Amino acid sequence: MNNFDEIKQRLRDFCTERDWDQFHSPKNLAMALCVESAELLEHFQWLTEVQSAALPADKLAAVAQEIADVQIFLIRLADRLDIDIDAAVAAKLALNEQKYPVDKARGNALKYTEFDDGE
Amino acid sequence: MNNFDEIKQRLRDFCTERDWDQFHSPKNLAMALCVESAELLEHFQWLTEVQSAALPADKLAAVAQEIADVQIFLIRLADRLDIDIDAAVAAKLALNEQKYPVDKARGNALKYTEFDDGE
Amino acid sequence: MNNFDEIKQRLRDFCTERDWDQFHSPKNLAMALCVESAELLEHFQWLTEVQSAALPADKLAAVAQEIADVQIFLIRLADRLDIDIDAAVAAKLALNEQKYPVDKARGNALKYTEFDDGE
Amino acid sequence: MNNFDEIKQRLRDFCTERDWDQFHSPKNLAMALCVESAELLEHFQWLTEVQSAALPADKLAAVAQEIADVQIFLIRLADRLDIDIDAAVAAKLALNEQKYPVDKARGNALKYTEFDDGE
Repeated sequence: MNNFDEIKQRLRDFCTERDWDQFHSPKNLAMALCVESAELLEHFQWLTEVQSAALPADKLAAVAQEIADVQIFLIRLADRLDIDIDAAVAAKLALNEQKYPVDKARGNALKYTEFDDGE
Repeated sequence: MNNFDEIKQRLRDFCTERDWDQFHSPKNLAMALCVESAELLEHFQWLTEVQSAALPADKLAAVAQEIADVQIFLIRLADRLDIDIDAAVAAKLALNEQKYPVDKARGNALKYTEFDDGE
Repeated sequence: MNNFDEIKQRLRDFCTERDWDQFHSPKNLAMALCVESAELLEHFQWLTEVQSAALPADKLAAVAQEIADVQIFLIRLADRLDIDIDAAVAAKLALNEQKYPVDKARGNALKYTEFDDGE
Repeated sequence: MNNFDEIKQRLRDFCTERDWDQFHSPKNLAMALCVESAELLEHFQWLTEVQSAALPADKLAAVAQEIADVQIFLIRLADRLDIDIDAAVAAKLALNEQKYPVDKARGNALKYTEFDDGE
């Protein structure tokens, strides 16, 4: 069993025991995911980019907890929509290979819609 | 190798080929994660909870792509911080078992800080 | 002086006294704005739509504080970019009148790009 | 009439004409606000802080539109909750004066809960 499925199953058990399925509509889970992502972001908002890559141990532990929260709600949301995350990621990576070919994307952060195709 | 590590490695290769590491500070990746989470949320903002659980096929496919984007940036962020997502999730689930004991959490959506311990 | 300008001036004084301009790059302020919006969202995540329209007094007071935080960072961000919020809103409202004509938009929540122009 | 009230009235008329009140529960408006804040954030995600303070004209115009969207949904949400933004901001600024006294807050971005009160 892959990691996503393992966590999915643990979350199902956790929520069934607490009778939480009633709160876990995809709409509500998408909100919770966004809230957790912003809690993660909060740790970085006043740091420089350099500081963000060298967090002290206590801050790093707090960030790891927020990353876990995002992961948990993402797997829970995908489960409620019957979406296979592993397959969705594989499909998206294949698409990104097409949208961001190495010769156009190298060394810039342009969105693919901004590539200059005019010469 | 687990799923997280497999995807992590693919993302490393993808970014190295495009010379994108320079843009991928934890600060910037946390921003990108939040942006993708909100793009996912956008699909649900005017739906009822019931509608959100019965998406038409084209909308479901679009949502799957956004879920993949969130997953990709989450793994990329964790990689840049050297955080093991699988271990972080396991630790968080254990913590949640403590914070939300079945007898207090059953059937309500209170935050653990809101439990009434006064009996 | 309009409300936006009044608050803008108070925030300038507040930040100058604390030597905070150094942290208030547009990038960082946009992050802070997003974080505060999500803190506001958190109050609603497990409520039904009906419950969200009938908040108890203590929750309403907490929500009012979060609304103030969003407003404060929005005015601060606009100030650092030299954007006139009142003018930007007026321009956007005029644009929305065009994008969402009454006969097409009445009673539905479609994005203007989703209107069926095929009759 | 202050700016907030003027815009509030225009938005009421706009939504009544389109029969949109049915979609504008506080829950949904809080989601829309978060989505718009993230669209604003997207413009800054790969920029350095220095670049974010020197946007080219076309990007600045796009950012102004996003700022307007955030402002519009914030006023609409406050209206639906019967919250007076101007009063809420005044109350929050007074509170911030207390939480961030000049001698403790000068030149650092610590949250008030992180001040060292130990000497």
